[in-house]
Parts: sequence; structure tokens; C-alpha cells
Amino acid sequence: MTKEVKCEQNYINNKLQSIVNDDLISFHMPGHKKGKIYDKLGYKDLVKDLYKMDTTEIIETDNLHSSEGIIKDSQERASKIFKSEKSYYLVNGSTCGIQAAILSSCSPGEKILINRDCHQSAINAFILGDIDPVYIKGSICEDTYTIQGVNEQDVIDSIDNNKDIKVLMLTYPSYYGMVFDLEKICKYAHKKGIVVIVDEAHGAHLGLSDKLPKSALEQGADIVIQSVHKTLPAFTQSSIMHVQGNLVDKKNLERFLKIVQSSSPSYVMMSSLEIAIDIYDRYGETLMADLLDYIHDFEKELLQINGVEVVKGHDKTKVFVSLKKLGINGYNLEEILRYKYNIQVELSNYYGVLLICTIGNEKSDFEKFLSAIKSIVENYSNNKNDSLEDYDEKITELMELNYPDLIPQKIISPREAFYSNKKSVALKDSIGKISGEYIIPYPPGISLTSPGEIITQEVIDYILACKEYGMHVSGLKDSSLEIIEIIEK
Amino acid sequence: MTKEVKCEQNYINNKLQSIVNDDLISFHMPGHKKGKIYDKLGYKDLVKDLYKMDTTEIIETDNLHSSEGIIKDSQERASKIFKSEKSYYLVNGSTCGIQAAILSSCSPGEKILINRDCHQSAINAFILGDIDPVYIKGSICEDTYTIQGVNEQDVIDSIDNNKDIKVLMLTYPSYYGMVFDLEKICKYAHKKGIVVIVDEAHGAHLGLSDKLPKSALEQGADIVIQSVHKTLPAFTQSSIMHVQGNLVDKKNLERFLKIVQSSSPSYVMMSSLEIAIDIYDRYGETLMADLLDYIHDFEKELLQINGVEVVKGHDKTKVFVSLKKLGINGYNLEEILRYKYNIQVELSNYYGVLLICTIGNEKSDFEKFLSAIKSIVENYSNNKNDSLEDYDEKITELMELNYPDLIPQKIISPREAFYSNKKSVALKDSIGKISGEYIIPYPPGISLTSPGEIITQEVIDYILACKEYGMHVSGLKDSSLEIIEIIEK
Repeated sequence: MTKEVKCEQNYINNKLQSIVNDDLISFHMPGHKKGKIYDKLGYKDLVKDLYKMDTTEIIETDNLHSSEGIIKDSQERASKIFKSEKSYYLVNGSTCGIQAAILSSCSPGEKILINRDCHQSAINAFILGDIDPVYIKGSICEDTYTIQGVNEQDVIDSIDNNKDIKVLMLTYPSYYGMVFDLEKICKYAHKKGIVVIVDEAHGAHLGLSDKLPKSALEQGADIVIQSVHKTLPAFTQSSIMHVQGNLVDKKNLERFLKIVQSSSPSYVMMSSLEIAIDIYDRYGETLMADLLDYIHDFEKELLQINGVEVVKGHDKTKVFVSLKKLGINGYNLEEILRYKYNIQVELSNYYGVLLICTIGNEKSDFEKFLSAIKSIVENYSNNKNDSLEDYDEKITELMELNYPDLIPQKIISPREAFYSNKKSVALKDSIGKISGEYIIPYPPGISLTSPGEIITQEVIDYILACKEYGMHVSGLKDSSLEIIEIIEK
Repeated sequence: MTKEVKCEQNYINNKLQSIVNDDLISFHMPGHKKGKIYDKLGYKDLVKDLYKMDTTEIIETDNLHSSEGIIKDSQERASKIFKSEKSYYLVNGSTCGIQAAILSSCSPGEKILINRDCHQSAINAFILGDIDPVYIKGSICEDTYTIQGVNEQDVIDSIDNNKDIKVLMLTYPSYYGMVFDLEKICKYAHKKGIVVIVDEAHGAHLGLSDKLPKSALEQGADIVIQSVHKTLPAFTQSSIMHVQGNLVDKKNLERFLKIVQSSSPSYVMMSSLEIAIDIYDRYGETLMADLLDYIHDFEKELLQINGVEVVKGHDKTKVFVSLKKLGINGYNLEEILRYKYNIQVELSNYYGVLLICTIGNEKSDFEKFLSAIKSIVENYSNNKNDSLEDYDEKITELMELNYPDLIPQKIISPREAFYSNKKSVALKDSIGKISGEYIIPYPPGISLTSPGEIITQEVIDYILACKEYGMHVSGLKDSSLEIIEIIEK
């Protein structure tokens, strides 16, 4: 009974073990980078024993949902370190924090002002809470054709145009590390008594250096949700929510946190949050200073290679690398890096790959990436073709041609749309009908129409243009882009 | 940097490590019993490395929310082993499975037939989905004065009395291992086209022996939610949902699973589910046969000790031990066992302690418990006092006197009640008003009145009697039992 188990049918475990054995270089989430940071900083014995420490509410442990002991003390320490008034460990990811924040701030039928490209968990909160979103358009980055955040003036205008708004929610920073002047927005919102919720899923690390954009808490946000697992060394699905100011009803927030999280909360998750925060407190600033140095040198060297482009985020830990000038698209680049050089990036789009660099990364990771890129440029740029230039041209034409400028009119609420009967019709017959689906063209990855909104001629024209130009459209169940689900009224 | 970390402020980790170092004997959840089963069966190297294996959606891994690879294969294996049609891993506990099952089966405004003592997550689903519960009373066990499940005839009568019901949900088995004839209920419900959802949180292990009650799936339930972490060796918060039959809309169920679970689902949880199912498949039946032998011998020996009482569940792995005849109440027994004998039970009530025994327990655990009980009987029964007899008498008087027979009339839905403004009034002034709180006397732990239900003279009389007899009433914010929150209409 002591021989180690190896069974073909352990699909998940065998694959994850083989990834560990491959010693893959990680430029993706989670922030602990395959646990290497724990080994390095002396947490190895602790994390190896977490399976023994996994327990429940017994004498001397605590209850996440009404903490009075070790969890309360641990959360209070986190609150001090992050300079919040109160902080909550989240064991169902930032998803549950975003849901609890929205549900506790808006009663059924009430409005929320929110960026159009908000996370799906926010939309799910609208469905559950019957909340009425008023969307703010995002601005598009010209280098990657992805959404880069809101424009401050657009937010202020939206506040002015919606006098009955009591809650504003924004994503900050963007996935690609772009930010905006949140402080100005918070000040304006607070003058009007508006609560500001910030989805800072990608920014848990921002407090670690003055060279990084200011954190949402520092800029005055009232409720801030951070994915500690994304950019700090906690396990996937471990997040934190911070609260400050007198606009937040903490009791109501806690009422909803009980609803959206397991009644058997994981001690493994909570332990990993405590470890991440311990590392943040004791080593975070030093490691971040080193990391920013590595990235600085790395980018300089990258840019010396002919044909390599780097799109820098305001948050320097997000690095977007493009070989489009060499005719290598991002999807191919991701695969080449993984299969030929044992490097895994966070994501790829047509133009390039995004690296998430954290305090879990070593100098050697950057050296290996650099040497891989040099080798790729040498070996693959011979295959150069013009497809990327074509693509570039096509996108430019498409966006200039007829990118719908207005967010479509909402006819029924997200909740009603979600629960409505749907039927499939031909795209051309859907004009003037209510959409039952999201229609999200990539790029830029912003919803053209969401369930409950009217389908316009403009929208259909744009989908048809996407089809003609061979662009990807997400959301529609029919991948041939001929059929769309509408809501029967 | 290689010295192992020890920091006073690691509240959770220091405490959990000290519990591991104490080598506590576990008769509580989770089912892996401080990881000992992994060590014994050869999974030690694997579980020690889970922190390295924690990853996210990258090349060659999979996405829980639209699985096509390793997660799909792993779930399909689980489905074969549990003989379901389809099985889903749950990373937000049985909580999220119960919520998705209810939300996907009932549209807003629709009714559900459910046992009055259902889990809080079910009530939370009523709030989120605006679902209208029709409650079925539970029967009370005379030995422990706790709720023991529904009576089959009550369920059938409730079906007959509610012609518009499309969904029935039941808890099976109870926390204390009591069951009822679920097969008969399922057959009756199916004849009427009613979907049967079973909260089998406490019964994931039932398929491992013919000597255990039949599992809910075997008896024909359509959707079954099991806490794999409770009675099988998975980590806390890891559960599974099984589906069978043609009454379930799987697509809709999956739509809700996406809402109630993190968009960054934990691979540690999913790995632990796969390990638990691997153990179930390869060693489960043998280990369960051994366990039932240990329990059989153990109970026989326990009963030979003067004054020791054992309440057996239908599910033999749940053992309730009472020393009430010796004047030791359950709360004291739990503390003595923990602090003098290094044994932690699952729970205590006034009468005794509940042991959850799983295939993770060793014969030696039972020997240690037995020797502890012998020693306690010897050392503590001299302090015998009559308080327990008093208590017994008081409960009997209370329950016979005026235990309200009817479930109070519902005036507004759980959702409306949840979102309503509440105000505090004196208990005596609340008659005829709508309750804003749960009022749950212990024992038996069944809600007298829930938010949205009318407060009757009977209810108030019972609370006042509880107060007079010194019984515990949960739910009311005012522990002096003088003030109650009502809903302002």
C-alpha cells in the first residue's frame, strides 16, 4: 500500500504532474509560479503540509462566515497591510466578491453605472439581483485592438447624465495593465454620494512599488476586489475584498458574502491567502523592486531584436510582446514558446502574447524568454508571410468602416432576458428584435449587443462585415454567424 | 532565505500546524482525516506537490466551465463510478450545487416542495431566484431531539396537496445518518412529472457497501449533490453533482453552475476530487468493509460500559455517543475529549457527541476513543449531577406543552422578505406581524418562523416557554429573546 499511485485514469493529476515535471517557465497565473516562490522563501514545508492542515470548524479553528478567532485575526492583519478599513478573504474567487459587492449595493430594479467590458460575474450579479446596468464605453488600444479601460471624462459625463445612480463600478487596471485617473473619478463620485466598487482583479500587487500605478484603495475606492492568486502568490480561486469609507453597508455586504460562498469554506484557500499576504508584507517590496529591474533590462534587450515589438502597460508587470512584423501571429507564438521552449504565456491574440510577471518570477525566466525570442526570430522569421499585415489592414478597415458607436438600447433587464424564452432566427430577420445572446467581436472584445438589448441594422452590418473579413465573433452559438437567438415577447 | 518561516502573525497557519503537530484523532470532516489516508494509500507524494500543480486554463489543461479535456475525462470517470448520467465537479462546495440545482429547476415565482430543515444554501437559492418554498415538516428523533428527516407519507400528501409543484427537494441522509424510503417518493414524484433534487451532502460514501442505506441516485433521484469532502477523502469545499433521467435540463443547470462558481476554478480542489474518486474506485469497498467492522466492534464495547448510550444512524458510519446517564453533557464531553484525550468529534449537543467515521479512520482511532470513554467514565462520573435529567424533563415538557404544529403562513416570499426594510419590536407586539428573522429553537433545530411568515400567538408562547425553560433559541439577533425584527409593509 505504500507504492506511489500511478493510474492512467487520473486525468487531471497525471497532466498536472507532467506539467510540473516539464519544469515549465510560467508567465501566467497563478502568481506563485508553480510554487517556486514558496520553495525560495522558506514556505516549502508549510505548503507541502497543507493537505494535512485542511480542516473545518472545530474547537480552536474559526468560521469564515462569522469569524471570531484565527480567521478574524488573519483578515485584520491583511487589512492593516493593504490599508483598508476591513478586509475579507474570498474562497470562491473574485467572482463572489464582485457579486456580493454589487448585490449588497443595489436593490432590485436599481441602476449601476459600469464599464461595458465588465467581468461576466458582474453581469451575473445583475441577473441574480435584478439590477439595471448603465454602461460606459471603453477606449480601445491601437496596438493590440483590445479594450484598455474607461476615459475619465466619459465616466464623469455618465454620472452627470444619470442623476439616480448610487453605485459606480469600474475595472482597474485592465488585463493588459492599463489604468486611468481613478482618484479623480472617486472624488467626483463621492461628492454625489456614489459608492465606487473597483474590480481590481489584476492589481493585487500595485501597492508594492511607487513605480506601479496607485492602487484603487489609495485612490479612494470604497469596495475593492483583488485576485490574490493572479498577481500575488496565493492559490487559484483565492481572492480578497477590501472596504473603506462610510458609504459601504458592511453588514449587508457580509449577508451576501454568506450567500455566494460555500458554507464549508476551504482552509487550504485561506492558508494560501495568509501565506501570500505574509510574503507581501515581508518580502514584497524587495522582490518587486528586483522584478521591475529584470523587466526593465529585459524589455530593453527585447527591443534590440529586429522586428520585436513590446506594448508596455502602465503596470510594468504586464508585458505584451509582438512578432507581427516578422509575420508570426500571437497564437503561433504561444504554441512555439510552449512546445519548443517550454515557456507558457498568459494569453495570446492575433498580434502577440501577454506575459504576467510577478514576484514569483526569477531573473532566469526572463533570460530564457529572451533567448527563446532570439531563437524564434532566427528560425521562424524565414517563414515570414504577409498574413498579419493583411489582418492589420482588415481590422483597420473594419473598425473605421462601421464600428457601432452607440451601446444599443436596453428593452428588458438582464434578469428578465436571462429567464426569457429564446428562439433562433436568421441574422437578417433579427433587426428590431431583442437579442437573447451576447455578440462580442474580437478584437476589440466588447459586446456589440447583450441579452435584452435591441438588435439594430448597424449591429447586423458589423457582424456581416466581421464575417466577410474573417474576424472572430464570440457569444453567438452559431459559429457560422447565420443564426441568432432572440427573445420572444 | 531557506530557513522555514515562523511568524507569530500567521494566525491560521500556525494554528493549523499546531493541530497537525498534536496528531489529533479526527472523528470530524473532512473525510481524509488530516490527510492520513493519502499517506497510507500511496498518494503522499502527489498531495505534497499539489501546490506546484495549482494552475489555470493554459495549453493542455482544461476549463471547468466548458470542459473538453482532462476535466471532462475526469468527470466522466466519476460519472461511471457513481453510475450517474453526468457528473459535475463543484469547487464552491455543495452550496453551489444546491443553488444551481434549484435555480435551474424553478423559474421566478414558481414553487418548490422542500423539507423545512433544508440547508441554508437552498433558502439562499429561493432568495436569488425568487422561488416560493412549500415546506414539509420533519420528524423528530426522541433520543437526540434533532430532526431526522421527512416521513414518506407527508411528502406524498404534500405532492397531492400541491398540484402545481414541479420540483421536490429533500435532504437525505440527515446529518445524524437517518434515512427514509426515497425510492417510493421518487417513483411517486416521477409519475407526476416532478423533478427530485436530493441534498446528499452527508451521503457521498453510501455506494461503498450494501450494509449502508441505498444512495439517492440508486433510488431514482434526478439531481444529487454530495459533499465529497465530508465523508470521502477530498479537500473541504470540494463537492460533486450527479444528474440522471430525462427531467433535468442539463444545459440550464450548466448555465447556473457558471454563475455560482469562480471563473478561476481551483485545480487543487479538482485534483482532490479526482484523488477521492480514485480512492473510492480502487480501495473504497474494502476500506468501508473494514470500517463497518471496526464500528460494529466499537459500538459493542462502548455499550458494555455502564452508563454509555449509543444512538445508531441508519448509516452506521454516524455514531452518536451520550454520557447523559452519567451526568456529562455533550458540550463538556466534546471539550474533555479534545483537551484531555486529543480527540475531536464532529459536533456536540446537550446530550452527546456525533462521530463522523470515514474510510480515512483507522482501527486505532476507535481504540483510542474507547479508552478515552472508559477513562472519562471512571474519572468524571463521580461529578455526576442531575442537570441532564432536569434538561430532559424540561424538553419533554416543552415539546409536549405547545410545540407549534403548523408551519406559519407565508405572507411574502423569501426574496421580498430578504430585501425588505426591517424594524425591531418587542416580542409581545409582534403577533400578527411579518417576521424578519429566523426563529430556531434548539432542540429540535427547526425554524418556528422564517422571514416573510406571519408571527402567531403560538410562536410567541413557544419562545417565551423556551426562555422560561432556559432553552437555546437561534436566529434572533436579540439573545435576551425580548426583541424581534419584523418587516415593515
